[in-house]
Parts: sequence; structure tokens; C-alpha cells
Amino acid sequence: MAALKGACIIGQSGGPTSVINASARGVIETALKNENITQVLAAENGIKGILEDRLFDCGLEDPKELELLSGTPSSSLGSCRYKLKDSDVDDTDYKRILEIFKKYNVRYFFYNGGNDSMDTCNKVSKYMQKVGYECRVIGVPKTIDNDLAGTDHCPGFASAAKYIATSIAEVSLDAKVYGQGGPIVVFEIMGRNAGWLTAASALANCVNEGPDLIYLPEVPFDMDKFLADVDRIRAEKGGCIIAASEGIMDKDGKFISEYGSSGSQTLDAFGHNQLGGLASVLTNKIKEHTGAKVRGIELSLLQRAAAHCASGVDLDEAYRVGEEAVNAAVRGETDKMIALKRADSEEYVCNCVAVPLSEAANAERKVPEEWMNEEKNGVNEKFIAYALPLIQGPTLQKTENGLPRFAHLKKIHP
Amino acid sequence: MAALKGACIIGQSGGPTSVINASARGVIETALKNENITQVLAAENGIKGILEDRLFDCGLEDPKELELLSGTPSSSLGSCRYKLKDSDVDDTDYKRILEIFKKYNVRYFFYNGGNDSMDTCNKVSKYMQKVGYECRVIGVPKTIDNDLAGTDHCPGFASAAKYIATSIAEVSLDAKVYGQGGPIVVFEIMGRNAGWLTAASALANCVNEGPDLIYLPEVPFDMDKFLADVDRIRAEKGGCIIAASEGIMDKDGKFISEYGSSGSQTLDAFGHNQLGGLASVLTNKIKEHTGAKVRGIELSLLQRAAAHCASGVDLDEAYRVGEEAVNAAVRGETDKMIALKRADSEEYVCNCVAVPLSEAANAERKVPEEWMNEEKNGVNEKFIAYALPLIQGPTLQKTENGLPRFAHLKKIHP
Repeated sequence: MAALKGACIIGQSGGPTSVINASARGVIETALKNENITQVLAAENGIKGILEDRLFDCGLEDPKELELLSGTPSSSLGSCRYKLKDSDVDDTDYKRILEIFKKYNVRYFFYNGGNDSMDTCNKVSKYMQKVGYECRVIGVPKTIDNDLAGTDHCPGFASAAKYIATSIAEVSLDAKVYGQGGPIVVFEIMGRNAGWLTAASALANCVNEGPDLIYLPEVPFDMDKFLADVDRIRAEKGGCIIAASEGIMDKDGKFISEYGSSGSQTLDAFGHNQLGGLASVLTNKIKEHTGAKVRGIELSLLQRAAAHCASGVDLDEAYRVGEEAVNAAVRGETDKMIALKRADSEEYVCNCVAVPLSEAANAERKVPEEWMNEEKNGVNEKFIAYALPLIQGPTLQKTENGLPRFAHLKKIHP
Repeated sequence: MAALKGACIIGQSGGPTSVINASARGVIETALKNENITQVLAAENGIKGILEDRLFDCGLEDPKELELLSGTPSSSLGSCRYKLKDSDVDDTDYKRILEIFKKYNVRYFFYNGGNDSMDTCNKVSKYMQKVGYECRVIGVPKTIDNDLAGTDHCPGFASAAKYIATSIAEVSLDAKVYGQGGPIVVFEIMGRNAGWLTAASALANCVNEGPDLIYLPEVPFDMDKFLADVDRIRAEKGGCIIAASEGIMDKDGKFISEYGSSGSQTLDAFGHNQLGGLASVLTNKIKEHTGAKVRGIELSLLQRAAAHCASGVDLDEAYRVGEEAVNAAVRGETDKMIALKRADSEEYVCNCVAVPLSEAANAERKVPEEWMNEEKNGVNEKFIAYALPLIQGPTLQKTENGLPRFAHLKKIHP
């Protein structure tokens, strides 16, 4: 295939992770070194930045600051939650994207995000093919939720998993400090539809300080069974540590976070159900049932922002999917997402492979039933074997004066 | 003074910190090396363990596991919240303590805790003097709250401060990811009566990702002023990051956490005010007032258990107060607490000094008014100059398989 010469754009989209900027760094550093890529542009706030011509020239950034991206949480390029309409329905946005691509002679487009971002990639790619504008489009995966299809796991998941397991182990040790009896602690963990992060709490059991009970959104939640589970654990051990996904639902598909403490709903000042209220619903239910002291801890944004506790393996893989996105595109690949494929070897090895975007765009990968325990209130050794290799190795976060030293980008418009 | 030969007991009491076990390690390792100390005993669950003869022999522990105490949060010896009666009122407990001290020939007693623990130390010491049993009693300070009098700061504070500043910086960066507008985030931070930890959130401003508004329990909280503050910051910056102490009260002394979203109270299933509900009260108030999206994050037990983010300076000082407790006692000191005295030097230096227990036992040190900003909704550079040197240096937590490797003690009864 003839070399395609031109500029590239990298954009980030959706909720951030601890390592999404490591992927951006992988794309930027690799593209800056590639002779076919004439200019490396970044879009501020993803596809919105392209529509509004808010681009910046990565070649003007200090290489030392680009290195610091690997220890910087959040999306350093800026993110967005912008859904492109189908181009058959309304092609205004697509025409504008084409205009910008032509303006800067953009021939490579890398988009760093989750399911929705892969859908955006796919739509942009199809449109460019339709209008005969040659541009290679590659998705760079990220999501703490780990629900992207077509990949063994997703960059971002392992670092959140490591933070969750570490924090639960530490708090669980703390909670036992007064001896007999012990308290009841409920951790509310992110993952609306897929329970990967909640399942990751089980990693803390590798140091004997993990949850006694784990509730995944894949399994219909039964309040009576739950309270009976808590009673049983308390009878055995005194206290009880619980990890529950924010997205657990009852058999009728109603979110448990929408249950009030007496079966009625908990509403905010506007009559809306309060998001992230699961821990408080469950703690109130347990208090009512047992009369015991219960503490609810919602890990909230902490779990996706804790770059100080990121996984070295995750950082490495996040960088590599970015690097491989550029290399694959230059080789001639397009309309693909870079996925991680685990080798069938004793030692953990994951290789980067390109999979069709369409495969990743419209599917949601869930925790398989055969990785759960029999009662479906925990996970088994198969999940641990899957997840444990992913959380190895230290963070790359640099500190200055005892605090994180985040990357500072100049963001100079070309 | 003639050398006093005999056993020692070390106990821990009150809420744990990330570094309280570093102090225990300091006591144990120093005592094990001292020729005047014939046996090093630890009490399980503090004074309760002494009353119940639940002691273990530290000389039988693996020295490698003792080293790991410096990366282990919680109280590895076990803690208690047990208040001794005055011996004039009821001396049952004191007689039992004397009996145990005689049984093991205990001539040194080290107690590792906060204000209440210093009170316990003081009472035990006075009783032993009264009955003529020679035993040297030294308090080893700890508290994340930093409210102990007689010391520049208290081991445990800096590590919690570092975790809080790091986490707020990371989350604040994450929260800004979608650009204009930005969200409103309320962090609820521990410290019922003293605002040291809440003030420590300001350290995140050293990396430009700190709170815009800080509310300390030292300052009467005014809801209208608060909402006006939020409006002003939002007008300037779009979003607003708020740090508030769980213990803030209005001018009438009512806890803000006891306000319901419409001025009424938020009660749990038993009609009790829910502890730790401040973030939810403030987020609801802001939502009502602005209609904007608001996220509340309660740092809960995470902030005192996060040994993975402990301060190196704190760990060093925690060890040193333990070490100095033993050395001072062997030198002949008794009825003292080991305090940290900051040297009047350019570079940060803190020395260990012995102060009378009575000085520490019955006072509560608060954030001085001259360290607050003019509006009293933030702190000034004097606080930063005080706190920043304390959070320097990395954690000593060891990991194994990507997870914290906590100390495992055998706890063999002598």
C-alpha cells in the first residue's frame, strides 16, 4: 500500500480514566516520530473540538510535559459527550468534520474512548469512505467499566480495579480495629450495566481483606436474600464487608438505588431519584433490619481519577494501544479498534490487535456467569486469574512537593 | 537515676491512622534492643487487652513482619474506645491493671493514641504513683485530626492530609473534563471539632486543583453566605469545588449535617440524625438553589486508612515518637507525651520532646484564625507553610502481587 501522507487528529471522549492520557501520549509520541504524519493535532473536547476548530499542535508541546501525561488522570485533551446523528438523517456535522479534515489535510483520525466513541469513529469512517475522502480511522479503547467488546480487557479498568481493591483492603483492615463484632461497611462501586469493577473488589481477598458479599448488576438483586446473606456473614464473622455495583436492579428491572429506606423512593429537591444513592439505600435497609451500625462508602469519582494508585501494566497497555493505533493506521488499517488479546501462556502477555470498529461499537461485555460463585454473591478463582495480572506494577505518577505533578499542555492552535 | 529493669507494654487506642503502626514499630523495635527492657509485650485492643490479659510477646514476632507495620494502616495491635473511670470513683480497673503489671513485672507503659488516650495514660500514671508501684508511663501521640495540644502536629495528620490533597487534586482535574460550566463538587472531610484536615484540602491549590471554598468547624457556618459564595465562584469559573468539615455548625451550634434539604432534619430508620450526611445536605441545598448538577463525595474511612498514599515525613516522625518514648522512659521520664517541636530553621526539622501528659490530655488545638483568609472560607499561606513540609516523601507500603502487603503478627501470649 502506498504511504498516506498527512496530518492526524487525536481526540478523547466520554468519562476519563487514570490512564487515558497514557494512550494519548502513546498516539502523540508515536505520530510525532512517524515520517508520514506531517502534523500531530489534538482536538479539545473530542469531536466537539473538531466541529469548532479548537485544535492544538502537539509538535509545539514540551516533550517532558507529554511524558507527564502518564501520571495525569482526567482527559488532558478535554472530553465530550456528543453523539453524532446518523449522516443519512443529518449530515451537517459530517460536512463540518470533512471541512476541518481538508483544512489541515487530516489523513489519520484517532479517537480515544468507550462504546459511544467507537460508534463515533465508525460513523466518521463510513462517511469519509462514502464521500471518497481518504482518512484512516482507528479507535483507541478506554473505559473503567471494562464493557467494551472485542478486547480481553480495556485500558482504564485495571487501574480503577487496583484502587478499589487497595482501598477496600485498607478500609476493611481499619474497620476491624475494635475486634469482636466488627462493623458493616457497604462500598458502592461504579459500573451501571457491567459489574467488572465491583467484581474487582474481590482482589482484596488475595490479602484476606476483601468483601464478604459482592453484588453485580448482571444478577437480579433480591433484598430479602441480601439481608439474609448479611445475617449469615455476621453470625459467622461479626462484621460484614459488602461491595455493590451502583447499577444493581431487582427482578423487575428497578434500580435498587431508587428504593427508599421503607420501599418508597428517595427523591432529591426536584423529585428526581438521586444518582449514586445505592450505598445509602443499602445501609438504611441493613440498619432497619439489624439495628447495627453500618457505614456506606461511595467510591465515586475517586475510583477513576486515582492515578496515584494506577497499575503499571495498565499504563503500559494504555500507551501501547495508542502506539499501535498509529502504526496500524500508517500500515494501512482503517475502521478498526486496537484491542488487547491475551496470549495463551503461563505468564501474562497481552498483544495489540486490530478488530473491526463495528464489533466494538454496538456490544456490551458483561461478567460471565461462570466466573461468579454459586450463590451469585461473589466471584470465583476464574475472575481472580483474569484480573490479578492486570493490576501489577506501580504508578508512573511523578510528584513534586509531595503532590502529583500533572502534565501542563500549552494547547497552541496551529 | 538507677536503671529500671522490667517488661514494657505497648497499646493502641482510638481511631486508627495510616501511620499509627509505624509508631508501634518504633516502640517495639527500640524496646527489643534495650537491655533494661526484659520483655516487650503488646496489649490487644489497648487498655481492654490489659484488663483481660490479652497480651502478646513482640519478641516472638518475625522482625520482617514488624518492619511491614510501617505500610500497614489500621491498628495492628487492635484498638479500643474504653474510658477509665476516675480511680477515686471506682478503682476496679486500676487494681486489675496493677495486678497485670505485677504479673509480668511491667515497668514501662506506652500508650499510642489521641486526647482520650493521653487521659488514660495520665490516670494510670497517677494511680501507679499513688500506690507506689514504679512504672514509667509515656504517651505516643496519634490522630488524623491534629487536635492534640502540646505538639507542633500529630503523627497521622500528614498522611491523611496528603491523601485528601492528592485525591481532591485528581478528582478536581477529572471534574473539569468537559470544559465550560464545570461541575460543583462537595467533599466532606473528617474532623468533628478541629478543621485541620479540611484545611489540608488547600494543599491541592499548590497544583492549581484545590477547592475554591473551604469551611472549617472553627467558623460558624451560614447557609445563605455559603450559597452566595457558590454563586460567586460559579460566575467566575463555571464550576466550584468545595471542601467542608463534617463538623461545621451554624451560629446556634446546630450541626449542618442535621439540616434536611428544606431545613428539616434528615433522619435514619430509627429517627437518628445520620452521621456523615453533610455532603448530601450541602449538595441538596446547592441543587435547590442553582438547579445545577452537584456531586457529593465523602472521604469517610478512606482518608485515615490510605497507607498507600502515606507521607514519608509522617512515617518517619511516627516511628521517631515511638522510639523516643522508649528512650525517654529508660532515661527516667514518666508522665509525659512525646511531642514534635518544629525547629526555627529555613529547612523543615522537627525534634522529639517530652511534654507533661496533663498538657496534652485536656486541650483541643484548633486551626488559628490568623491562618484563615479574610472571609474565613479558605486558608492562607501561613497554613500552607505549616502543612506542606509534612506531606513530603513517599509511602513505605510494600506491595505483593500488586496489592498492599500488610504485616501479619502471630500474637503469641507470653
